[in-house]
Amino acid sequence: MNVEFINPFIASLTNVLKTMAQTELKPGKPKKKSDTIAHGDVSGMIGLVGESIQGSLSITFEESLALEIMHRMLGEKPTEIDDDVSDMVGEIANMVCGGAKLALAEHGHEFGMATPIVVSGKNHSINHLVDGPKMIMPFTHECGTAYLEICFNK
Amino acid sequence: MNVEFINPFIASLTNVLKTMAQTELKPGKPKKKSDTIAHGDVSGMIGLVGESIQGSLSITFEESLALEIMHRMLGEKPTEIDDDVSDMVGEIANMVCGGAKLALAEHGHEFGMATPIVVSGKNHSINHLVDGPKMIMPFTHECGTAYLEICFNK
Repeated sequence: MNVEFINPFIASLTNVLKTMAQTELKPGKPKKKSDTIAHGDVSGMIGLVGESIQGSLSITFEESLALEIMHRMLGEKPTEIDDDVSDMVGEIANMVCGGAKLALAEHGHEFGMATPIVVSGKNHSINHLVDGPKMIMPFTHECGTAYLEICFNK
Repeated sequence: MNVEFINPFIASLTNVLKTMAQTELKPGKPKKKSDTIAHGDVSGMIGLVGESIQGSLSITFEESLALEIMHRMLGEKPTEIDDDVSDMVGEIANMVCGGAKLALAEHGHEFGMATPIVVSGKNHSINHLVDGPKMIMPFTHECGTAYLEICFNK
């Protein structure tokens, strides 16, 4: 998986959170995921299907960060992850993926997006089953950490 | 979402577990998911993308049932959900979805499958974000319960 493929997702995530939630996330170093595991409390996931590629994307938030983003985006601050937070995380995943999809289409990489799935549960972990490289990248904020994971079978 | 669309997934799940793990699951009643939430410990998820449809599938297992299936499929019985169990659950989701895809293609319903994502975490819950009906169906076994969820935006 090359940088040309990854960068639009990174740019899209920072852009979506900046414009929608006035939240500046500090990008960490992208790593090939091997032993590194994203643990978080709420994750938005989207399946990706193209003519010749398949893949998946996930964005995992620690609870404290998800609640802060909820507060900044919608003005409410629930005390725990509820249906509204879950919906928001799914929408963020959708916007991030949609932004990257547009940018990648300009370079001839076309794929379709499945509908988002959101998982809520204290300290869950995610395993992308793909026959190809997996990229994981932390994004830090004073309220907590988010992890972006992308993988494609090419 | 009509029965013609749902039945191949139900048949494929019971068939995969019967042939691969000698495990007979008892299908419960399919319901439109509204308040009904699948809680489980390990879930295999796959995004679905067709020309005019998008959707998602998940199969959620209680830990006790996942470990028993692992024992029957591979002869090992880990004491908790580890990477091998996670991989197995992803493969089951892949086989179930692949079987249903073949059956549906015969009726002119074509879609592509994303790569599976597996989430592990005690008692997590799943929220499929789709603008359309969501179907949830329990499958019971003496070792625990599995939940199949399917949704499409049409």
